[in-house]
Amino acid sequence: MIVKLAGPDETVLQAVSAALEAMGGQVRLLALPYGTFLAALGLEHPALKPIQAMAGVAWARPAGSKPILAARELNPGGSRVQLGAVSVGGETLALVAGPCSVEDREQITSTARFVAAFGATALRGGAYKPRTSPYAFQGLGLAGLELLREAADASGLPVVTEVMEPGDVAAMAPLVDCFQIGARNMANGPLLKAVGQAGKTVLLKRGPSATLAEFVLAAEYILLEGNAQVILCERGIRTFETATRNTLDLNAVPVLKSMTHLPVMVDPSHGTGRRDAVAAMARAAVAAGADGILVEVHPDPARALSDGDQSLHFPEFRRLAEQLKPVAEAVGRRLELPESLPFAPHQVPLIRRAMGWGGSR
Amino acid sequence: MIVKLAGPDETVLQAVSAALEAMGGQVRLLALPYGTFLAALGLEHPALKPIQAMAGVAWARPAGSKPILAARELNPGGSRVQLGAVSVGGETLALVAGPCSVEDREQITSTARFVAAFGATALRGGAYKPRTSPYAFQGLGLAGLELLREAADASGLPVVTEVMEPGDVAAMAPLVDCFQIGARNMANGPLLKAVGQAGKTVLLKRGPSATLAEFVLAAEYILLEGNAQVILCERGIRTFETATRNTLDLNAVPVLKSMTHLPVMVDPSHGTGRRDAVAAMARAAVAAGADGILVEVHPDPARALSDGDQSLHFPEFRRLAEQLKPVAEAVGRRLELPESLPFAPHQVPLIRRAMGWGGSR
Amino acid sequence: MIVKLAGPDETVLQAVSAALEAMGGQVRLLALPYGTFLAALGLEHPALKPIQAMAGVAWARPAGSKPILAARELNPGGSRVQLGAVSVGGETLALVAGPCSVEDREQITSTARFVAAFGATALRGGAYKPRTSPYAFQGLGLAGLELLREAADASGLPVVTEVMEPGDVAAMAPLVDCFQIGARNMANGPLLKAVGQAGKTVLLKRGPSATLAEFVLAAEYILLEGNAQVILCERGIRTFETATRNTLDLNAVPVLKSMTHLPVMVDPSHGTGRRDAVAAMARAAVAAGADGILVEVHPDPARALSDGDQSLHFPEFRRLAEQLKPVAEAVGRRLELPESLPFAPHQVPLIRRAMGWGGSR
Amino acid sequence: MIVKLAGPDETVLQAVSAALEAMGGQVRLLALPYGTFLAALGLEHPALKPIQAMAGVAWARPAGSKPILAARELNPGGSRVQLGAVSVGGETLALVAGPCSVEDREQITSTARFVAAFGATALRGGAYKPRTSPYAFQGLGLAGLELLREAADASGLPVVTEVMEPGDVAAMAPLVDCFQIGARNMANGPLLKAVGQAGKTVLLKRGPSATLAEFVLAAEYILLEGNAQVILCERGIRTFETATRNTLDLNAVPVLKSMTHLPVMVDPSHGTGRRDAVAAMARAAVAAGADGILVEVHPDPARALSDGDQSLHFPEFRRLAEQLKPVAEAVGRRLELPESLPFAPHQVPLIRRAMGWGGSR
Repeated sequence: MIVKLAGPDETVLQAVSAALEAMGGQVRLLALPYGTFLAALGLEHPALKPIQAMAGVAWARPAGSKPILAARELNPGGSRVQLGAVSVGGETLALVAGPCSVEDREQITSTARFVAAFGATALRGGAYKPRTSPYAFQGLGLAGLELLREAADASGLPVVTEVMEPGDVAAMAPLVDCFQIGARNMANGPLLKAVGQAGKTVLLKRGPSATLAEFVLAAEYILLEGNAQVILCERGIRTFETATRNTLDLNAVPVLKSMTHLPVMVDPSHGTGRRDAVAAMARAAVAAGADGILVEVHPDPARALSDGDQSLHFPEFRRLAEQLKPVAEAVGRRLELPESLPFAPHQVPLIRRAMGWGGSR
Repeated sequence: MIVKLAGPDETVLQAVSAALEAMGGQVRLLALPYGTFLAALGLEHPALKPIQAMAGVAWARPAGSKPILAARELNPGGSRVQLGAVSVGGETLALVAGPCSVEDREQITSTARFVAAFGATALRGGAYKPRTSPYAFQGLGLAGLELLREAADASGLPVVTEVMEPGDVAAMAPLVDCFQIGARNMANGPLLKAVGQAGKTVLLKRGPSATLAEFVLAAEYILLEGNAQVILCERGIRTFETATRNTLDLNAVPVLKSMTHLPVMVDPSHGTGRRDAVAAMARAAVAAGADGILVEVHPDPARALSDGDQSLHFPEFRRLAEQLKPVAEAVGRRLELPESLPFAPHQVPLIRRAMGWGGSR
Repeated sequence: MIVKLAGPDETVLQAVSAALEAMGGQVRLLALPYGTFLAALGLEHPALKPIQAMAGVAWARPAGSKPILAARELNPGGSRVQLGAVSVGGETLALVAGPCSVEDREQITSTARFVAAFGATALRGGAYKPRTSPYAFQGLGLAGLELLREAADASGLPVVTEVMEPGDVAAMAPLVDCFQIGARNMANGPLLKAVGQAGKTVLLKRGPSATLAEFVLAAEYILLEGNAQVILCERGIRTFETATRNTLDLNAVPVLKSMTHLPVMVDPSHGTGRRDAVAAMARAAVAAGADGILVEVHPDPARALSDGDQSLHFPEFRRLAEQLKPVAEAVGRRLELPESLPFAPHQVPLIRRAMGWGGSR
Repeated sequence: MIVKLAGPDETVLQAVSAALEAMGGQVRLLALPYGTFLAALGLEHPALKPIQAMAGVAWARPAGSKPILAARELNPGGSRVQLGAVSVGGETLALVAGPCSVEDREQITSTARFVAAFGATALRGGAYKPRTSPYAFQGLGLAGLELLREAADASGLPVVTEVMEPGDVAAMAPLVDCFQIGARNMANGPLLKAVGQAGKTVLLKRGPSATLAEFVLAAEYILLEGNAQVILCERGIRTFETATRNTLDLNAVPVLKSMTHLPVMVDPSHGTGRRDAVAAMARAAVAAGADGILVEVHPDPARALSDGDQSLHFPEFRRLAEQLKPVAEAVGRRLELPESLPFAPHQVPLIRRAMGWGGSR
């Protein structure tokens, strides 16, 4: 049972908690931006009525197979989740960019610097990598995360990175602004609970065979730990089509917006698996109403240790940002692009090379 | 084998035809906007070399499992297909609108008038309806087609309508500007050949479980009859997701553009099956680079004999057109919206009612 | 509306027909093995009650989105459909075998002779072939059908062959025992109606993205033309899996048996697309309760003009039949295998070669 | 790189290890039933040749995107994995049965006793439950596992139970004979590594959207930890079909058998989600060549806390076992069914009730 209190009145809270516990429920206080709630798991329907009748109780709802805390009606105006300078879900779009994997200091630093210079609002990069084959590159682990943090700090960006097991959350948390739950782990209950308890922002990716209803229930696991800082991310579903790595399902954007108040981002890199389709699908995502874009960028995609086929070259990222701006404005949103470079090109050799700015220096 | 001639030289044509026939091929002349071709079916690879060596032959390619005539490289700039006043594939977007089924004169006439007034460039409507259940409304047939033609003429729009069997093509042709091949019939070879021979524009919808490679091969069937007026239309594929009727696969837009020179339209009505998602996905399609939108509009969707859930109300269609215009411009395209109504509202009671323009009259 | 009469009483029939027509229905008499029915299309619910009240009416049901004539409850014991010597749906399994395409006289004759000798109960072979690419072999047409008929007659087997368009039904009918509707055409309403009217047995294959509910509705189209001789055939659905050509969905067997009284066969050749999986899946189909198996056999699969990868060599077919027999018996069914060869091996060179029986003769 | 040694010669082992380490590899010894191997992760191709040339090296293979240790060719006769009295992969079939969740002592004890009496070879039951909704029953945890162990011991059966996070493995291991990795966790690398290291038998379920190639790679994660006791389990994939909860993909049986030497079991309960289809699909699985069946059984499915719709009643389980026996024999396998009850029915009230054995007591 989920109980919404009319307000954060301490006396009411004590009284309702006590009543729920007396009925045998395990009670948990959830102070979310859109209300104060008590979750009492394990209580049956008959308990609803007496609780609903208590003073200071707005409503009590039975727990079932539908989301309660993530449901749109709980916050019809839509939630905002802070990620660095951007309030995701508001007017300004989030543009999260970076390589699939952190590979070495120069790779991540130059990428961070470049994407920051051309409009990124957060830096992504994987240190712990879920891979289909045990022989594929599994990421640099904590050492990689430290490089990522360092690069992000140098460019003034927040860090978004994937966590793969509950046991890693504590060690990673000090270095992370936003935990990504990867598609493979969308339905990993212990992991969802762990990031819920960590209190950091969470970017939750849709599982490749998850329905939208299941996706929102996965978010409900996190909210039920009292963590409201959840961003959903569509990244493609698995279908029969083989021309794309996944089938990026942009229908998810309007449909999720009708189901939940949580912000919705889109990852066209994994969604298509093809560099040549990323920009078109990013534009489409923004036009469909997405609150942000997550995109893979690499200084030299042909040599990337993972996901090279879908990673943008630096000049492609710059063009993407420039293309997204007018589309955002056409649908009443904004994307802020810096007006001048925060670095002198000759100071950043890898960027210079990647951009073909080369020359006599 | 497909042979491209260097030019439309009659002597060369005779010589090459004769050579192909001498080798045992059934030869067919294809005068397409991007070249003159000879198709010789049934010839094996060894025949290639001697033909390639003939004077006036640009190239000869073996027929296999890949498209030749529909392949992008044949016309890298992209093809244009005329549909009424719009050259589909060019700068201006096509906006094809109308009800799922033609139901009666007033329904189709008022819809035609309304959509024409607010930006539609062609009228769609079904007279022959493929339905899952034999008990569902199967369409008005030829009588419905006549109503559709009449309504389209009165509003100055071309007619797009579905044909279901080869035997109907001849009777329908005089009343039709563009034959639609529905999703169920994408791989219906005899029907593809029949509309290929009819020489009318064809709107070919993707089958619900067709890969993009198969989709382009279906178009190849039509081109191989010498009919180059083919528009592809993504309309959703079948996946495990149940929140939408189909999964509109916008990835198809950039991917098809890389595979074929044919124009690509998108049908967000069938693609989502939900009225509340149509506008978002139409905007997304335009941002992804679609050459046009196909959308269902009905004066009173709640009473529609088919597809009511996904049909737009009149005011929704108007808003959609207004929303598409800035998105089109943001990606370098145009959508022309009339500046003044071509009718006085009080003259069209059904439109007045549907728009809530009611009043004292 | 569908009306079941209590019995085939002519007076009742006249009276009910007249009443239905007076209400505006188009009335059709359906004399099916499990009852006499009147279908009155286009009548609304209010008409039900007065009809139900008439003498001699067993029941009247409103037409909707569910099957009526194909529903299990109409014939709970299950229907039998005669195919040559086998009553499909009864104790004895049907074993339909033959090449994908009829290629020439020797190929089809030797295959017919061989499969007949080792247990086949019907001969399959395609003369009209639906192909993804217009450049693929499209079948020999009527000439191929004549070869098929001749080969079948010589071996005493009935002919099962695909029909692709309504316009071909009349010309094919005299040469065909059982029309196959291929997977691509499962939802081709005009074709379903045409074979329904032809009055021949129909083998209806499931569409690659058709739900079982849609599959049964497609059969309903045929039954509604008064043709009860319908056999369903599961042949694989399209999924994300690429190790098999399709995903043979054997769940269809028990589930269809609960939904419909029609017999259910299984085609493991198309269902898997892999010769090495055909026998295992055929055994599985029989164990699941299938009423028969449809399998592709070719004297030299490596040279087949279509579907070579999934066609069994002659010795494999023989082993398959021998393997199916004990499985059939383990689930209370029978498969009759001839005890002696109806031909002297040396008289049939192609079979001798294919079986490795060669030698000094 | 994976290196196979010609034999378990300690000198060779030392020499090759040293060489690999000198090249920079992290070396791991894998003593598997079909050979002694050294895995050296992180080494590039150039290292292959010198290693291959060393004395006592059978072969060295580069690690890539394909399985090495799980590949069929490594053990063409097929592997056996002991589970209680059954050598899974051998002639005798495994029959793993029990409730979805352990609910209380009487439920699990009576189920264990019943299934043991009628042919089960192992007891399954969930103590840690992955659930789509955070409000659904999440299992009894360690307390549930203790009840399961107790029930299994009382009936002489080994325990199969799901583990959900790496952190739980150590606490669970003493109570478990076989760790189940559930479908949601098939690609959970940290969990696969953890059970690999635990050295217990692992039943690895296929993910609902995993290809068979990915499935075998997941097993490779476990083998790469030196644990060869891995059983694969097909349990249904997610498709568009809604008549079944999942689409049990029996094609997996023959195809996996061609790809890997690991035993393959089938779970028709999750695979169909329908009690009325379980027996048919279990028979089909055995006929297709499965090495065992995993099936849910509950004393009172209507009251089950999870998966009631797909759990067999006691009498249905008994019938299932009796039906599987002749099918197993028809394909050259065995299923051993006890000849007499190991308990007096009146001593087990819940079984008596569930079987309708009631009476005067």
